[in-house]
Amino acid sequence: MRFALLALAFGIASVAGAEAPKSLPESALARAAELRDQHVERGQAYEIVESLTTEIGPRMAGTEADLRAVEWARQHFIALGYDEVRIEPFTFPYWHRGHERGEITAPFPQPLAITALGGSVGTGGEPLEAEIVHFENLQALIAAPEGSLEGRIVFISRRTDRVRDGSGYGVSVPGRSNGAAEAAARGAAGLIIRSISTNSDRFPHTGMMRYAEGGRRIPAAAVSNPDADLLLNMLRRGAPVRVRLEIDAETRGEALSYNVIGDIRGRDLPEEVVVIGGHLDSWDLGTGALDDGAGVAITMAAGAALLKLPERPRRTVRVIAWGNEEQGLIGARAYAAAHAADMERHLIAAESDFGAGRIYALRAGVEPSYWPLLEQIASVLEPLGIPFEREGGGPGPDVIPLAQRGVPWAQLAQDGTDYFDYHHTANDTLDKIDSDALDQQVAAYAVFSYLAAEVEEGFGRRP
Amino acid sequence: MRFALLALAFGIASVAGAEAPKSLPESALARAAELRDQHVERGQAYEIVESLTTEIGPRMAGTEADLRAVEWARQHFIALGYDEVRIEPFTFPYWHRGHERGEITAPFPQPLAITALGGSVGTGGEPLEAEIVHFENLQALIAAPEGSLEGRIVFISRRTDRVRDGSGYGVSVPGRSNGAAEAAARGAAGLIIRSISTNSDRFPHTGMMRYAEGGRRIPAAAVSNPDADLLLNMLRRGAPVRVRLEIDAETRGEALSYNVIGDIRGRDLPEEVVVIGGHLDSWDLGTGALDDGAGVAITMAAGAALLKLPERPRRTVRVIAWGNEEQGLIGARAYAAAHAADMERHLIAAESDFGAGRIYALRAGVEPSYWPLLEQIASVLEPLGIPFEREGGGPGPDVIPLAQRGVPWAQLAQDGTDYFDYHHTANDTLDKIDSDALDQQVAAYAVFSYLAAEVEEGFGRRP
Repeated sequence: MRFALLALAFGIASVAGAEAPKSLPESALARAAELRDQHVERGQAYEIVESLTTEIGPRMAGTEADLRAVEWARQHFIALGYDEVRIEPFTFPYWHRGHERGEITAPFPQPLAITALGGSVGTGGEPLEAEIVHFENLQALIAAPEGSLEGRIVFISRRTDRVRDGSGYGVSVPGRSNGAAEAAARGAAGLIIRSISTNSDRFPHTGMMRYAEGGRRIPAAAVSNPDADLLLNMLRRGAPVRVRLEIDAETRGEALSYNVIGDIRGRDLPEEVVVIGGHLDSWDLGTGALDDGAGVAITMAAGAALLKLPERPRRTVRVIAWGNEEQGLIGARAYAAAHAADMERHLIAAESDFGAGRIYALRAGVEPSYWPLLEQIASVLEPLGIPFEREGGGPGPDVIPLAQRGVPWAQLAQDGTDYFDYHHTANDTLDKIDSDALDQQVAAYAVFSYLAAEVEEGFGRRP
Repeated sequence: MRFALLALAFGIASVAGAEAPKSLPESALARAAELRDQHVERGQAYEIVESLTTEIGPRMAGTEADLRAVEWARQHFIALGYDEVRIEPFTFPYWHRGHERGEITAPFPQPLAITALGGSVGTGGEPLEAEIVHFENLQALIAAPEGSLEGRIVFISRRTDRVRDGSGYGVSVPGRSNGAAEAAARGAAGLIIRSISTNSDRFPHTGMMRYAEGGRRIPAAAVSNPDADLLLNMLRRGAPVRVRLEIDAETRGEALSYNVIGDIRGRDLPEEVVVIGGHLDSWDLGTGALDDGAGVAITMAAGAALLKLPERPRRTVRVIAWGNEEQGLIGARAYAAAHAADMERHLIAAESDFGAGRIYALRAGVEPSYWPLLEQIASVLEPLGIPFEREGGGPGPDVIPLAQRGVPWAQLAQDGTDYFDYHHTANDTLDKIDSDALDQQVAAYAVFSYLAAEVEEGFGRRP
C-alpha cells in the first residue's frame, strides 16, 4: 500500500449519469447470501497467504523472487479452477538494495536502525558522515533557505498518527516521498526521516521516494521510531549530532514483471468485467503478509467461492494479482494502458491493500443515483458488520489508474488501526494475520463481486 | 536479566536463627512514609535512564561503551550526593560480535532474522550451510542418539510462555544455555533456537550460552519468533530445509570492567550494609533501557530520596550498579569474593532487574521468624499496591552470589508480563518505559532500603 491517501482525490462523482434501473433481483441477493454463508471455505485465504509467505516470502519487484511469485499466483489461480488465467507483462527501472548501516558518531556514538527508502541512491561506496539538521516536518524543511543545508544530513521527525482509516499516513508520507528532493534543493548531502509508522518498535520502514527531475540525488533512509526519539534526545542537549550512513543501493537497468489475472467468465456478458484484487509484489524486508499477501489471498479465495456457484455470474469477475504496486502502481498503469479501449466495459473495481483487519464499511465512487445498488449489496453484507457509507473512502492504489479512466470504484474498508505498525518492515510476517478475519473479508469480496457482476446496467462512469 | 529462575533454588530459608526483636519503631515507619510521599522526585529515575540510554546506549561488558557507562554511573552517584562513590574492578573473557547473517537456502530461499548467542563461536570466516533437524525442546534433543545429527544444524522450536513472574523464561531458556553443547555432543555443526521471547516480532533475542568443558564448539544463534514459525511451516511440507549461517563472533583476550558503588553512609552502624542495585551492562543490540537501565535508575533514585532525609539511616545503604551481569554475574561474583569477610555485615540485598513494570509484591528469603519485619515494611508499601508475600520469588541475579554466602534477599517483584517481548533485543529502548511506573518502584526501593537499614538486628542468615 503506497497511495492510499491519493484516494482522497477520488471522492464521490457528482456528475449526472444516465438514469438506469438501480436494483438487483431478489434471486441474486439470495444467491449472494448463499455465497456468504455456504461457499466461503473457512481458512482458505489463510492457506493461500501462508503459501505465498512461506514458499516465496519477500518479492520485491524485479527480483528473482518476484518472478517466482508470478508463477506461484498463476499456478494458484489454475488450481482453484479459474476459467482463464494469464499474465500480462510490463517493465520498469530495477531498484537494488545492498547493505545498509547507520550510526551516530557524535556526541554519543550509537548504532542506528536504518533502511534505505525505495528508489534511493547509495552513499557511493563510502560512508557519508555529516551533522544532522532537524525539521519537524516537510513544510519546515521547505521553509529553509536555499543553500542553508550545505553538506548536512536533513532529519525529518514527523510522527504518524494512528487512525483506523490510515489517514495519519497521508499526513506524514510526503516527507518520505519528497524529503530528499527538497533537502537536495537546499544543499543537503543526505536525508533521514522518522519512519512513516505508528509503532514504537525498532523497525525502520521503507517505502518509495522520488527525486526532482534533473535535481541532485542524495541518499535517503528511514530510522525507526525509537531511533528518531534518540536523535531528538541528543539534539535537546545542544551539541551537534553527527550521523554516518553507509548505503549500497541503486537503480539499474530495466526489469520485467507481470500482472497475474484470473477470470471467472461471465455467463451472459463475458466482455464486461468487475475487477477485484490485491498486489503481488512486496517490499524486500518482510514476507509481505499484510502488504499485500492478504489482499491477494482474500480476493483469490473470494473468486474461488464464486466458482462453487451452480452458474457463473452474468459478467466476468476478474481477480488481479497486481505487479509492482510498491514502486508506483507500475502494473496497474500498464493494465490501464493496455486495456484502455476496454475501460468502458470495466463496471467497477476494488482492491484489498490495507492489511488483514476486518472490513467495517462499503464505500463507492459512483454517482448518487447508483447508491441504491450499493445499499442492496450492503444488505447482504450486513450480517458481516458492513454497512454502506455514502461519504469518504477512495479507490485502492491499483484501482487509481482505472478510476482515472472513468471506472467507478468500490472500497471494502478494512480496519487499519495496526496496519502502519508493520507496513514496509521486516516485521510484516504471517503471524500478524488472523484467519477468521480473512474469512470475513473473503465473504465480503465474494458478495460484492458477485452482485456487482449481476447488476442490470452497471454503475455509470466517473468524470 | 539472565538467571531469574535459578532463583527457584533459593526459596525460604528454614533453619532456625537466633530470636531477635522483630519489629521496627513507629518513628522509622513514619519516616519511611515521608520518603514514599515526599522525597521521591517525580521523573528522576526516568531522567537517569534517559541519560544512560541516550549518552551511552548499548554497553556490552568489555566494550569501550561499557567503560563509558562505568564513568557515567560514577559521575551520577557523585552528582546525586552519595557519601562515598567507588569502583571495584574485575576481569573476564571478552566476547566479540561482528556481522551475522542467516538465510534459508532450500526449499524456499528467504532471509532469516538471526543473532548469535552470547559466547558463541563464529562460522570460521565462511558460511555454514546444512540441513536443519527440528526438536521441540532441549529434552527431545537430548533424547537423540549420539552421532545422529552429524553435520546438521539443530533447530529447537520451544516457545516461551507469557507469565507475569517471568517463569516461562525458566522453562525455555535451557535450550539457549545448553542447546549447543547437547547438539555438538551428537555431531551437529550448528544450533539455531527460537528466541527465548514472548513476542511475535521479527527480533532475534540474544543471551548467554555455554559450551561443555572440553566439548566441540559450534555456532549458536537465535531466530525471531516469526522466523521460527516460517521454518516450521517449511518443515511441514516434508522437503529438507537447509539453512546458511554466516556469523563472525569470538571470545578473545581478557577484558576489564567495574562494579560502581554509591554508599549512603549509616549514622550508627556504617559497616553494616543493605544492598540494592541494578546491573549497568547490557547486551549490544538495544540500548538496555529495560535490561537493566531501569534497575540502575530506580535504585540510584531511591538512594537519592534517602539522601534528602534529615539524617542518614542507621546502617549503610549501598547502591550497586553491577558490572557484567549478562555474561555470568561476573561483577557480582567478584564483589562477593572481594567482600567475603564482610558477608556477615550484609544484612539483606535486593536487585531490580526485570524491566520497568510496576512492583506488585514484596517477597524475601529470610527465616519465617523475620516475616513480621517484612510485614511492617509492607505496611508502608501498601499504598503503592505492594503486599508482602511469604511464598515464592527469589533473589535478583546479582544477589545470587551474596545469597550463596548466607545473605538474606528481598524481592520487589515487578510485573514482567511484557518483559520478554523486548529483553535482549535491539528493541530494548527507552520508549518502552513509563516514568510513572518507575516512580512507584523508586518509592518502593526507598522505603524498603531505608527500613531494612533501620531494623534492630538484621534479618538473620541463610543456610
